[in-house]
Amino acid sequence: MRNICMKISYDGTLFNGFQVQPEGRTVQGELERVLFEISKQAITVHASGRTDAGVHARGQVVHFLSDLTIPIERIPIALNTRLPDDIVVLEAYEMEEGFHSRHQAKQKTYRYTIDNGKFPDIFGRQYRLHVPQKLNREHMKQALSYVVGTHDFTSFTSLKSDKAHHVRTIYKADFIEEGNFIHIELTGNGFTYNMVRIITGTLLKIGFGQKKPEDMLMILKACNRSLAGPTALPIGLCLMNVEYN
Amino acid sequence: MRNICMKISYDGTLFNGFQVQPEGRTVQGELERVLFEISKQAITVHASGRTDAGVHARGQVVHFLSDLTIPIERIPIALNTRLPDDIVVLEAYEMEEGFHSRHQAKQKTYRYTIDNGKFPDIFGRQYRLHVPQKLNREHMKQALSYVVGTHDFTSFTSLKSDKAHHVRTIYKADFIEEGNFIHIELTGNGFTYNMVRIITGTLLKIGFGQKKPEDMLMILKACNRSLAGPTALPIGLCLMNVEYN
Repeated sequence: MRNICMKISYDGTLFNGFQVQPEGRTVQGELERVLFEISKQAITVHASGRTDAGVHARGQVVHFLSDLTIPIERIPIALNTRLPDDIVVLEAYEMEEGFHSRHQAKQKTYRYTIDNGKFPDIFGRQYRLHVPQKLNREHMKQALSYVVGTHDFTSFTSLKSDKAHHVRTIYKADFIEEGNFIHIELTGNGFTYNMVRIITGTLLKIGFGQKKPEDMLMILKACNRSLAGPTALPIGLCLMNVEYN
Repeated sequence: MRNICMKISYDGTLFNGFQVQPEGRTVQGELERVLFEISKQAITVHASGRTDAGVHARGQVVHFLSDLTIPIERIPIALNTRLPDDIVVLEAYEMEEGFHSRHQAKQKTYRYTIDNGKFPDIFGRQYRLHVPQKLNREHMKQALSYVVGTHDFTSFTSLKSDKAHHVRTIYKADFIEEGNFIHIELTGNGFTYNMVRIITGTLLKIGFGQKKPEDMLMILKACNRSLAGPTALPIGLCLMNVEYN
């Protein structure tokens, strides 16, 4: 069996998330449908992690086992000609037998984008949360800096999480300003359920002046979801890349 | 009667062009519907020029006469709360009686964007023409430079044009490279029907090596539409701005 790894990009707008669900269109479902068309075999596609409904990916990594005979360099084009226009395979690699896109992922980068213009920039409005209110950006930057390091992120984890613990290490947390846009970009060894969206929702509360920058530290230490801000809508979230050794 | 001028932005993807048509959703139609909701009067909206089905605008300028009583600074928000999310009013100005958004336009800038990546960048794919083939960019740049100046653009005008003459002045023609994207940006005192799209279609022929850069000059002089390239799809075209004295 070949173990094929692919870097893919998708626009999450019209997907009910990555993982196959009883209802709705999914990224995994589209990939598996196309692989079945090509191979006439049921192939299961595994990802570095699921993304929720409406969340985008520039550099998601997936892998699958198969005995497809298509040369590795032809895999992206073979899939892209059959995939809908909101998913694209960017690269494909032949991996050793033991490679697993989730188990071996070393770090991931997520970006949450806010359009802070008075009116939304409608070009690419599907990829940004429009927040027209005035934001205290200095307070947001200060609060964001507190998430760097190894912490128990329970306060920033959905109550629906089924993980035993929520300790993760954030290597980098950038507050990138680009015209009216603000990108909150986090790189870490892993992310708990809804973590980036809850961090963003909390930063917005701080930006609005409804919480203080130091509250971020207190919330982090408290390990209590109810102290953090709301879960920001999926629209602004994008999985930028996944890194391996 | 007040004469109100507005700068608007729209995503042309789901519009059958700017101008009201017997069939389909139009930008003018949406604006007039909302103005009727607000004023209970039939108000006609005039633009600096029509845009075709599928063409986008970042800075279209429109005006309308009315006896609306909403203060000028509240006009954008009053309309935006009622407009669909693919049109936005960015600015509104109170103009003198004689102002006309088309008659008084001094120059316009259009941009045509090509995604020259092997696979499309799916974020914003509605705003770019994907051309995966290798392009001779130096030849395209050279050819583009020939359109600057005052010329009879008949070769680059749709046969459906109902204009008496096709002499226009192009002040600036930029070939802007941004990663895999190529922006062809033209500023001129006016543009004939499909002019930017036919220029782009011809530049692509040159980029593919199917025509030589010097052919651009020959085609321009010949005043013969059949010598130019095809009309590039509307998807990549955007009216960037309109200037007045």
